[in-house]
Amino acid sequence: MRENPVHHTRCLKLTVAYDGTRFVGWQRQAEGESIQGLLEEALARLEGAPVTVHGAGRTDAGVHALGQVASARVTFTHDTATLARALNAQLPQDIRVVDVADAPADFHARFSARSKTYRYGLRISPVADPFDRAYVWHVGAGLDVDVMRQAAAVLAGTHDFAAFQSTGGETSSTVRTVFRSELVSHPGGADPVARFPLPCGADPLARRSWASEVGVGPRECLAYEITGDGFLRHMVRAIVGTLVEIGRGRRPATTMAELITRGTRADAGATAPAHGLFLVRVDYD
Amino acid sequence: MRENPVHHTRCLKLTVAYDGTRFVGWQRQAEGESIQGLLEEALARLEGAPVTVHGAGRTDAGVHALGQVASARVTFTHDTATLARALNAQLPQDIRVVDVADAPADFHARFSARSKTYRYGLRISPVADPFDRAYVWHVGAGLDVDVMRQAAAVLAGTHDFAAFQSTGGETSSTVRTVFRSELVSHPGGADPVARFPLPCGADPLARRSWASEVGVGPRECLAYEITGDGFLRHMVRAIVGTLVEIGRGRRPATTMAELITRGTRADAGATAPAHGLFLVRVDYD
Repeated sequence: MRENPVHHTRCLKLTVAYDGTRFVGWQRQAEGESIQGLLEEALARLEGAPVTVHGAGRTDAGVHALGQVASARVTFTHDTATLARALNAQLPQDIRVVDVADAPADFHARFSARSKTYRYGLRISPVADPFDRAYVWHVGAGLDVDVMRQAAAVLAGTHDFAAFQSTGGETSSTVRTVFRSELVSHPGGADPVARFPLPCGADPLARRSWASEVGVGPRECLAYEITGDGFLRHMVRAIVGTLVEIGRGRRPATTMAELITRGTRADAGATAPAHGLFLVRVDYD
Repeated sequence: MRENPVHHTRCLKLTVAYDGTRFVGWQRQAEGESIQGLLEEALARLEGAPVTVHGAGRTDAGVHALGQVASARVTFTHDTATLARALNAQLPQDIRVVDVADAPADFHARFSARSKTYRYGLRISPVADPFDRAYVWHVGAGLDVDVMRQAAAVLAGTHDFAAFQSTGGETSSTVRTVFRSELVSHPGGADPVARFPLPCGADPLARRSWASEVGVGPRECLAYEITGDGFLRHMVRAIVGTLVEIGRGRRPATTMAELITRGTRADAGATAPAHGLFLVRVDYD
């Protein structure tokens, strides 16, 4: 009598970039395509059996990722480079597996994460840019950036972020630790060319073009960046919505300090649109 | 008896940026949306009568523009700033009028142009980037960039570019003058982050992310830039296709010199995909 073959379980750590525009979000849904669902299908084809993928951050519909991390348990033995190629061959072009690594048996993309970093892009200009409309929130002119910067800095530390949580979140505690909360200007700041979303956008030719010929005038690009040990539902987008209201002078900069001491969701600003948000990276011990 | 009101004809110069992805091209077609068609519709609504728009370059389906220039004759008297806002309010977000100016009565966007500049973006990397798949041609690894650079330089000057013209072009002469033909590396060259298509992509945080966490390794971004007094049908894309074949070692660098002395279209390389091409700017006297 033959023994069944022994299937050694293997834990994979996948780093994934995606343009979230056309997806229902990271998480599998009854309807529509999700990043999780497509990764699970691609892995299941290699495994010959269903595979469950866990993501570090369950990004909403329209939210993008540069370095989402996912874990999966499999038994196939392909080497990691072959596996990355095989997955990318199956996935649509707006999802790319940028790295595959073997991880310790107890690795879980979400529960093992030490911190996650999100970035939210803001474009301050009179005319929107047709090439980044899916990646930044175009907020028009006249924001007081210095006041926004001060307000952003207040969030660093361990606080109750209940004021920035949308209903429908799963967690019982709304206390989180934020390691970094900063509003940064793009190095090319006032120069509309330096950040043009082209591989060679910063070259002198293009710079001449926009500065002289197109003449749309200076535009400012800002990003809000936050690193924390965990995030409540829509937390980053609610923070950004509040920051923009502060920048527009609709609420004082002191709002932030009040919100993290005694705020409820109704006290904070509107939730900023999903398409400006990127999950940048996830860090592990 | 009342006289008819005198309608003073006014010549407008419009500078237009567009993401060409979903359009049938600049030019009006029987089916599908064109940039020309949408501009004409928007102007006609203001004019209360049909308006014809002439573009400097009739970009193909999928080709983008940073600074396309169009001319139109109208009689309405809105100031240029109001007009820009009114047009952008009507146009879809992937077309933006970035400047409106009054031009001399004999101005014609195409016939008055002294030179046009196109840029073609190439991404050399093992893994494609989900965020620029609509804006660069991803050509994988292993191109000999120095040889391509030498070959590109050969095209400057007045030559017969018949080898780079697709059938269907309208012109009788295939001689054109190229003022500049250059392969340029993105300043952030080997650093995958520096050119990331985000407003704040070049900041230190993101740099850490891609370099260490995502770990896709260095990627190179190249652009081919060409300025000339006129371009034959598919000329830039045929030049880029030929340059890439030279870079891959499939044909010698000397090909270029031969093509502009005695070449036919069959002798040159394949036409590069439309989506890597941008009409960057149009210059007038």
